[in-house]
Amino acid sequence: MIEEKIKELGYEVPEVAKPLAAYIPAKQVGNLVMTSGQVPLVKGDILYKGKVGKDLSEEDGIKAAQVCALNCLAAIKSVIGNLDRVIEVEKLTVFVASAEDFTAQPKVANGASELIGKIFGEAGKHVRSAVGVTALPLNSAVEIEMIVRVE
Amino acid sequence: MIEEKIKELGYEVPEVAKPLAAYIPAKQVGNLVMTSGQVPLVKGDILYKGKVGKDLSEEDGIKAAQVCALNCLAAIKSVIGNLDRVIEVEKLTVFVASAEDFTAQPKVANGASELIGKIFGEAGKHVRSAVGVTALPLNSAVEIEMIVRVE
Amino acid sequence: MIEEKIKELGYEVPEVAKPLAAYIPAKQVGNLVMTSGQVPLVKGDILYKGKVGKDLSEEDGIKAAQVCALNCLAAIKSVIGNLDRVIEVEKLTVFVASAEDFTAQPKVANGASELIGKIFGEAGKHVRSAVGVTALPLNSAVEIEMIVRVE
Repeated sequence: MIEEKIKELGYEVPEVAKPLAAYIPAKQVGNLVMTSGQVPLVKGDILYKGKVGKDLSEEDGIKAAQVCALNCLAAIKSVIGNLDRVIEVEKLTVFVASAEDFTAQPKVANGASELIGKIFGEAGKHVRSAVGVTALPLNSAVEIEMIVRVE
Repeated sequence: MIEEKIKELGYEVPEVAKPLAAYIPAKQVGNLVMTSGQVPLVKGDILYKGKVGKDLSEEDGIKAAQVCALNCLAAIKSVIGNLDRVIEVEKLTVFVASAEDFTAQPKVANGASELIGKIFGEAGKHVRSAVGVTALPLNSAVEIEMIVRVE
Repeated sequence: MIEEKIKELGYEVPEVAKPLAAYIPAKQVGNLVMTSGQVPLVKGDILYKGKVGKDLSEEDGIKAAQVCALNCLAAIKSVIGNLDRVIEVEKLTVFVASAEDFTAQPKVANGASELIGKIFGEAGKHVRSAVGVTALPLNSAVEIEMIVRVE
């Protein structure tokens, strides 16, 4: 049902990126599932590279955040099998690779937060931090961690 | 009692900033309450703007961290009603917008940690990370997340 | 047994750095133990200072991450007495002080993740975020937070 909702919204839950050697995409800890930091990777390529406010526009940053959020859901699905088992979304931490003078991290992070809101409704209401950083893995524009509660 | 203690120390728990569209100021997860990243917002204005070590002094950074800590408590109060229900403070994550060569993030973060210590005593002993970042929402000098345990 | 494994690998769990005034090195919350952000401090000195990709090589960053990981274990041991009580490692958050154009944070973070993998085997499989930041406490090259589950 959650995946149908995501399709209705015009998005798709991708395949999870292959687990790298020493860490894993997501992990269940008690009734929470925590993801690793997810970057805007689509079929092996980083879709949004560089610093928002310099190499990329705010609008691109928003799209990058949407891709990261979907990759978080893919990572969670790889652990719990079916996203319908998510009871609520607890937290997003959104790191935005930012130009020195770019301070609209909340707008970029809203790309993820609003998408989660559309997908999960009331159950999508989460806490969030948005932080502007120097550089992210593979020159990603955005990196997002997600924590959800599951049955 | 906790709020009286805060007043005795010369501070005040503000009203919580109005919840923004897609995320909320704080959330209870089991017996923990986690806040969103709180910035030094006072009555709608960011009180400390810019990078510590460049636009702002260390002393200003410390004051900004105090305001963020009080805003975290306001966010927590908005969820649990009364700060006396806090059993202990578990964790602070302190992001400091920093000049390239500013490395006294622990001193800035102490603004928050020491205030929490004064307010909660033994129950205020928390773990903490202090990190220097490029830029923060609305040009805030400091952003703090807090996790507490409640009854 | 875990400490013997660490010695076999050619490393050692250091003494935990003395708790600073207002915060503590690690804390148990339910069946989790969370550390404060640990820097590459060895016997009172920061061993790896500056920004990776500018003042320090990637290889130095990797070594710094290893020292931080061992300091996380020291912090955890200070709370639970014996590292054999760790059931599994849940999460690492790895902040790397980075040059503007340094984007190999995952390689630096692997210094910690791979060491944890060698020490804990299957139980060491964790989620992780790696983030490039402007500056870290005391000019540290790397800062790491760890969450483990204990008996």
